[in-house]
Amino acid sequence: MSEPLPPGSTIGILGSGQLGRMLALSAARLGLKCHSFADAHGPAMDVTAAQTIAAYGDEKALAQFAASVNAVTYEFENVPVTTARFLEGLVPVRPGPRALEIAQDRQTEKNFITGLGIPVAPFVDVSKANDITAALVKWGTPAILKTRRLGYDGKGQISLVPGAGADKAFAAISGQPAVLEQRVTFVREVSVLLVRGVDGAIDAYDLPQNTHTNGILARSVVPADIDCATAQAAHAIAKRIADALGYVGLLAVEMFDRGPDAPPQSRLIVNEIAPRVHNSGHWTIDACVTSQFENHIRAVAGWPLGSCARHSDAVMDNLIGAEAQDWQRLAREPGTALHLYGKGDARPGRKMGHVTRLAAKTGD
Amino acid sequence: MSEPLPPGSTIGILGSGQLGRMLALSAARLGLKCHSFADAHGPAMDVTAAQTIAAYGDEKALAQFAASVNAVTYEFENVPVTTARFLEGLVPVRPGPRALEIAQDRQTEKNFITGLGIPVAPFVDVSKANDITAALVKWGTPAILKTRRLGYDGKGQISLVPGAGADKAFAAISGQPAVLEQRVTFVREVSVLLVRGVDGAIDAYDLPQNTHTNGILARSVVPADIDCATAQAAHAIAKRIADALGYVGLLAVEMFDRGPDAPPQSRLIVNEIAPRVHNSGHWTIDACVTSQFENHIRAVAGWPLGSCARHSDAVMDNLIGAEAQDWQRLAREPGTALHLYGKGDARPGRKMGHVTRLAAKTGD
Repeated sequence: MSEPLPPGSTIGILGSGQLGRMLALSAARLGLKCHSFADAHGPAMDVTAAQTIAAYGDEKALAQFAASVNAVTYEFENVPVTTARFLEGLVPVRPGPRALEIAQDRQTEKNFITGLGIPVAPFVDVSKANDITAALVKWGTPAILKTRRLGYDGKGQISLVPGAGADKAFAAISGQPAVLEQRVTFVREVSVLLVRGVDGAIDAYDLPQNTHTNGILARSVVPADIDCATAQAAHAIAKRIADALGYVGLLAVEMFDRGPDAPPQSRLIVNEIAPRVHNSGHWTIDACVTSQFENHIRAVAGWPLGSCARHSDAVMDNLIGAEAQDWQRLAREPGTALHLYGKGDARPGRKMGHVTRLAAKTGD
Repeated sequence: MSEPLPPGSTIGILGSGQLGRMLALSAARLGLKCHSFADAHGPAMDVTAAQTIAAYGDEKALAQFAASVNAVTYEFENVPVTTARFLEGLVPVRPGPRALEIAQDRQTEKNFITGLGIPVAPFVDVSKANDITAALVKWGTPAILKTRRLGYDGKGQISLVPGAGADKAFAAISGQPAVLEQRVTFVREVSVLLVRGVDGAIDAYDLPQNTHTNGILARSVVPADIDCATAQAAHAIAKRIADALGYVGLLAVEMFDRGPDAPPQSRLIVNEIAPRVHNSGHWTIDACVTSQFENHIRAVAGWPLGSCARHSDAVMDNLIGAEAQDWQRLAREPGTALHLYGKGDARPGRKMGHVTRLAAKTGD
């Protein structure tokens, strides 16, 4: 096991969005510097000691970047795996490229998860419209067609409702390789935010209960309205995934809870994993002594993890697009932590910030 | 009253130490950029979007700085008043230069405070050794000789104990203009951390109770062991000072509490004021929704203030010099927020970081 990076070391972050920004702010609390690398200027670059704007395939730029940092992490799962593998030859990359590779392809991800004996929604691989037709004959609707790659925040997803045409749906995703998932009935969505250190130590935050609108996370509430045994089962599932990957850093695992009437072994179904800090963990900045961002940085730097305990209940609401224009009213609300990401253009669907409302801690 | 600066605006910060660093990290949460200006590189410059290293008297550099920012603040009280006045002609400077001017000179400060009818320790002006001798004849020892200017963290202070020579003491401060203070007996030191907005709105944090070692703040504990009426009186004193200055931002007022046996009107004695965020308020980062740093930035940006309410009890310990080498042990402590300032050289007496230990909230 490697020695922890001493304060003053530099963490390289691939990607320059709000997650990279919040990672950099947490690293700064610990006396660590950050170097942001991305193919375009982004809000992370306003708070880092160094910045590189270059293509993810630019090996000269990557080599210079690697030489200037002590470890590398990433803030989004669509960093090319070849980039992570190139860097891995020069400097520790945490989490490793394997986690990226799995999370980038829905088919690989689902096979990996089911290979661990963990349930996912029934799915079939789709490489032609007939694959959709065949599955719909078997399942009926509703079902969801999802591109294998480059999907996030509901992008690359098509809902198939009764009477929907397979050809039309396949054309709508431009005939990309995809999976078709049976739409699972569930009572709530939760996510596990787990952190794993270089020594294999693991801790996890209390589960947030999540609500999505138009495929984008709208709200996370902690504590979730879920019993202790189910929460423990969710944590155990995430731990199995993290251990199987030899994961280092913060891992998010989105799950559907099918409720007490479902068979115990398939009550929890994994929707997807994200090998990075996650929107459903933003409440940890204000409700925990150690946030998901700080714990990710601690893991990447080889430091001891901080406790995931929370001191408060929390409700996190995303500010999407024009919602952020309400900042003056939100800034006045007592007990409300306002976070804005420093993005200029409040396009519809763009995550511009979030608010976390705190209340005295109730049960777990 | 001016409009609040919109998110995306830039705050200029004079000074590049840890206070500027924590101000910049708080500004980033709100989607504001920072530009750090100082006569040498400092830890704030690792987390700001822009940096200028130039002399505080360099008017060309100051004019360029002013043109690049929407408001200016400062992180230490020894910024030359001429610098603040020069900038004030170009861009809003908050708090204003008057607060700097008063806080930079102990004599001016004491006269200003007593002029508001607020008690300070008995003092005399010292311009020659005989002034010390005369005061000691009247008061006896102990007494403290303090240079009028450039004193902080116990620097420029000499304790006069029985048998101490006036000539020797005056020589020890190189014959600089000074004040001699009678050593006041007190039961505890507290500080008021008050924030005042551009509209005159005021809020204040619960009082920390402070302990100094070798003239440097060692620990702040919240809540202080003080009755409600005395805490209210402390807040009222700070409010009178802030209102008299037309202050905008976070104002720290250090006080001695002489205890219940002292006459009610002089139970609280003001030791000194700091026109900036203050070491005794570092606990607010982890124990409040809105920290002193964020509230200072909000005030400087003309934003609504955040609530100063705290959600937890807190004990903040500074990490001075080699104490910061203990970071690995401290990083493991549950419930402990570790802050390191990114300074390279852990010289004796240098503030390298702090830790805040949180506990469930008890009384006020």
